[in-house]
Amino acid sequence: MSVRVPVVEAITKANDELARLNRARLDSRGILGLNIMASPGAGKTSIIECIVPKLSRDLRVGVIEGDIATSFDAERAAAAGATAVQINTGGSCHLEAQMVSQALDQLPLDALDLLIVENVGNLICPATFALGTHQNILVASVPEGDDKPYKHPRMYRGVQVLIINKVDLLPYVRFDIERFRRGVNALNEGVLTFEVSCTTGAGMEALVDWVRAEAAARRAGAVQT
Amino acid sequence: MSVRVPVVEAITKANDELARLNRARLDSRGILGLNIMASPGAGKTSIIECIVPKLSRDLRVGVIEGDIATSFDAERAAAAGATAVQINTGGSCHLEAQMVSQALDQLPLDALDLLIVENVGNLICPATFALGTHQNILVASVPEGDDKPYKHPRMYRGVQVLIINKVDLLPYVRFDIERFRRGVNALNEGVLTFEVSCTTGAGMEALVDWVRAEAAARRAGAVQT
Repeated sequence: MSVRVPVVEAITKANDELARLNRARLDSRGILGLNIMASPGAGKTSIIECIVPKLSRDLRVGVIEGDIATSFDAERAAAAGATAVQINTGGSCHLEAQMVSQALDQLPLDALDLLIVENVGNLICPATFALGTHQNILVASVPEGDDKPYKHPRMYRGVQVLIINKVDLLPYVRFDIERFRRGVNALNEGVLTFEVSCTTGAGMEALVDWVRAEAAARRAGAVQT
Repeated sequence: MSVRVPVVEAITKANDELARLNRARLDSRGILGLNIMASPGAGKTSIIECIVPKLSRDLRVGVIEGDIATSFDAERAAAAGATAVQINTGGSCHLEAQMVSQALDQLPLDALDLLIVENVGNLICPATFALGTHQNILVASVPEGDDKPYKHPRMYRGVQVLIINKVDLLPYVRFDIERFRRGVNALNEGVLTFEVSCTTGAGMEALVDWVRAEAAARRAGAVQT
């Protein structure tokens, strides 16, 4: 197994370089880039479906969807009003900067204000691979259980925003939100947190307001530089 | 990236050899080995907690728990009546045969009838690494959504048993069970399927009966050889 470490290091170093190039492409145009990560089925695509129509009122939204297989998610993002590109990773359990770079080639970057990247559903490896986005967002979902920060510390540590999804299911499952919060705080104290439900729409306005403000700040920064 | 493929092939080949050795250790003692895989939070540990007390009436149960971090799951399995060993993989997103081999060293194999291995919560990479168990079991959970067979075909294709968990949440989430079944059947027609709920206990007796029958068959085979 000793051969693996240098290979992985070489891969992540090359990845970081490509991520910087992706970031530069976004920054030169004042585009805000978000990288949404989560377990399979935590609701990443549902959140995108919910916020894109609201954001599209004043932002031009591009979405890059990462999946092992199918173009279901890109179709859902496009139906919600985004310009969407699907990446199929084949066997790879995470997106890498190179994949995002190729997807950026297919997007009309000069006509976008916001880029949402939906990573492959996986609570482990996406944390290792920078994509060039500005904010890493983790979606935790209530039925996954309150132990996930403890069991997946790297993912919880590396994000700027945490979305707790499916709060409408709180009455039906065992989920001690105080235990969950203690785990999060030990890893990432003060992380910006939204509690939402795609089913009821709860919390979505606050999330949309935050994305809109971040995008405005990014655009203002681009104008000044 | 071209460097990755031969490295991965060498790793999986070495893994397969170690998996065969693990299998031989189980077979020589007539122990049934189960490998339970799923997304994070699909309910693998809850199912183990539910079935171990029932199985322990006539089987001696060992559990190997795989997680990135914490020994929560081994503690839960032990509290349910199993002899439990925790593997912490550090960053690794799946169990490998070598890790299971080391865990087997810590278990009283001559005093076991059943070994349950709970893999790391991940719907992608565990499918690539044989552990030496006899049956691969995939736990799908209703709140994950009905699109998962389509998006994670390799995992659904490689299992002998499918457990659909959290069926008590069907009234509260969008989950088209017919769409889910069509996806499963296209990949793995006729896979043995159990529908269960750890919350209500629905379906658990059938699952326990199946495990008990499989263990008896394995023991009978061991006596004959």
